[in-house]
Amino acid sequence: MPGKSGLKVPAKIALAYGSGGRLTHELVSGLFARAFANKALAELADSAEIKAGRERLAFTTDGYVVSPLFFPGGDIGKLAVCGTVNDLAVKGARPLALSASFIIEEGFDGELLKKAVLSMKAAAAEAGVDIVTGDTKVVDKGKADGLFISTAGVGLIPAGRSLSFSGLRTGDELIVSGPLGDHGVAVMNARNNLGLSGLRSDCAPLNAMLEKALSAGAVRAMRDLTRGGLATSLNEAAAASGLSIELDEEKVPVSPVTANACALLGLDPLYSANEGRAMLFCPPSSSAKVLKALRSHRYGRGAVIAGRVLGKGGDVSLRTAVGGSRLLRMLEGEQLPRIC
Amino acid sequence: MPGKSGLKVPAKIALAYGSGGRLTHELVSGLFARAFANKALAELADSAEIKAGRERLAFTTDGYVVSPLFFPGGDIGKLAVCGTVNDLAVKGARPLALSASFIIEEGFDGELLKKAVLSMKAAAAEAGVDIVTGDTKVVDKGKADGLFISTAGVGLIPAGRSLSFSGLRTGDELIVSGPLGDHGVAVMNARNNLGLSGLRSDCAPLNAMLEKALSAGAVRAMRDLTRGGLATSLNEAAAASGLSIELDEEKVPVSPVTANACALLGLDPLYSANEGRAMLFCPPSSSAKVLKALRSHRYGRGAVIAGRVLGKGGDVSLRTAVGGSRLLRMLEGEQLPRIC
Repeated sequence: MPGKSGLKVPAKIALAYGSGGRLTHELVSGLFARAFANKALAELADSAEIKAGRERLAFTTDGYVVSPLFFPGGDIGKLAVCGTVNDLAVKGARPLALSASFIIEEGFDGELLKKAVLSMKAAAAEAGVDIVTGDTKVVDKGKADGLFISTAGVGLIPAGRSLSFSGLRTGDELIVSGPLGDHGVAVMNARNNLGLSGLRSDCAPLNAMLEKALSAGAVRAMRDLTRGGLATSLNEAAAASGLSIELDEEKVPVSPVTANACALLGLDPLYSANEGRAMLFCPPSSSAKVLKALRSHRYGRGAVIAGRVLGKGGDVSLRTAVGGSRLLRMLEGEQLPRIC
Repeated sequence: MPGKSGLKVPAKIALAYGSGGRLTHELVSGLFARAFANKALAELADSAEIKAGRERLAFTTDGYVVSPLFFPGGDIGKLAVCGTVNDLAVKGARPLALSASFIIEEGFDGELLKKAVLSMKAAAAEAGVDIVTGDTKVVDKGKADGLFISTAGVGLIPAGRSLSFSGLRTGDELIVSGPLGDHGVAVMNARNNLGLSGLRSDCAPLNAMLEKALSAGAVRAMRDLTRGGLATSLNEAAAASGLSIELDEEKVPVSPVTANACALLGLDPLYSANEGRAMLFCPPSSSAKVLKALRSHRYGRGAVIAGRVLGKGGDVSLRTAVGGSRLLRMLEGEQLPRIC
């Protein structure tokens, strides 16, 4: 409830407030954005733009609490690096340096810590960025869940680049960089020992691929698709631009194994988490060139044009295969807790 | 044990690996610094120096797991802001922006979260820095301890400034900015309901005070005194410079209530944590001017010259009141877990 301070906070913080969906947005906009009121934060983008003397920087942070810590295609260490690199890259920034804050539960296995650290090292090497500063805390047994990692990242925004949902224009095309939902179902499968085979997280550093895309042609805005999936990110784009967005159901790329797992688990791949996928908005004059550039990179081979920006509104609609249309809302509640 | 990778990691992570003392250093130098091998990290300073185009930046992170969350003189929110601001300031950097990653236990009281957030807001306002980006994760009940916060910070290093322990010279004087150990005993008193009165954390943003000191005269290096206390920070300075440092027991400032609490609790104020104190090394020609500048600021009224840099060696010794001398080592084990 809003108090004298004008801040809105729920009586108790439920799991769903960390889902990345509607409740997370309520908490962020009602509490954090109001309390810390400043222009950079108010944009609620993946990373904030700040001035540093004569340079423009992107700055971002993410906490990682994924369970289990290791899963096919990734682990908490790889996630922590890729997530932060990707948050910088979608702002058009070139990653300069990462930080890592480790919160470890007393008694945690040293070899598992080493495994996570080596995974961070490999992901950072692939992204071409150093982890330059860190911190380690240990809390008593039973007061954490093995290992949590918070990373932050600083990137340099080259002169002239300005990517923001406020730059979207009617007629812009929506590119999705690859099959959706792999990360979410891979983690859920590993967590619950469901035994579905072939599921693998898409977790990857996207900076090199996105840099290629930016060099190929005009891009208005980009976002990496994480908690809440494509549907939630599209709603953020629609809300920030004030324009409506239409997604073509037939075009949405989903791998057969993930589609099958989603059907079995009652999940929607449009809301399932990704950690190596991005959406890009381009004017029609550049979308073919940008698409080609994405497809020339190994993380973008499955890229497609999957929708478009309509006129004023702020809604997201799904145009179905049979020609119907339904509203796609932000993720409600908690589809998959602790997915990253 | 070192494996093929050359990385050293204990079989199990004990609480003491998060103490900020010798075992933390073993973990950081044996695992993190080796795996992430890069020049900025290898310095193991409070913050890393990075190049961003034409500018030099300081970049730092810290995780906060303090228990209890609220205590006289501060709380987790104030700590999270001050700790990161201070890590930038001791590098001579002017804080540009902070990030905040919240890891919240399911069911955590919304009003307490608001209280911590308002405290962050107040500390950030005092330090003159914005919290521009953040992240929120919620973990299941019993998998965290209420609230953990990891902050990171970016600061701009003005041209010509270069503060590092490698710059220490024989004869440099050691300034301590105020009474030692207040934070550690205040938290311990609050955690264990010891009922000792008058104890209050020294938690404060030191950037304005340190900026004043830097304007007053030459400073070789500075460090904020946190986990592990002055003794541990002096050992870091001695190890990094290869020079020995001597501390005068009679000069070390300790408030009567903290001295009394330390005696009762069997603690040493030289190893007790601070969150609003710094040590500075200056050439003799500037120490009086720097001291005067510190004393003119409300957080530095108790500043004193408390020691000096000797010749080659790398040890820290305490010159006692009766003229004797004993080695002061880095904090061993865990004097006070979860102090920040």
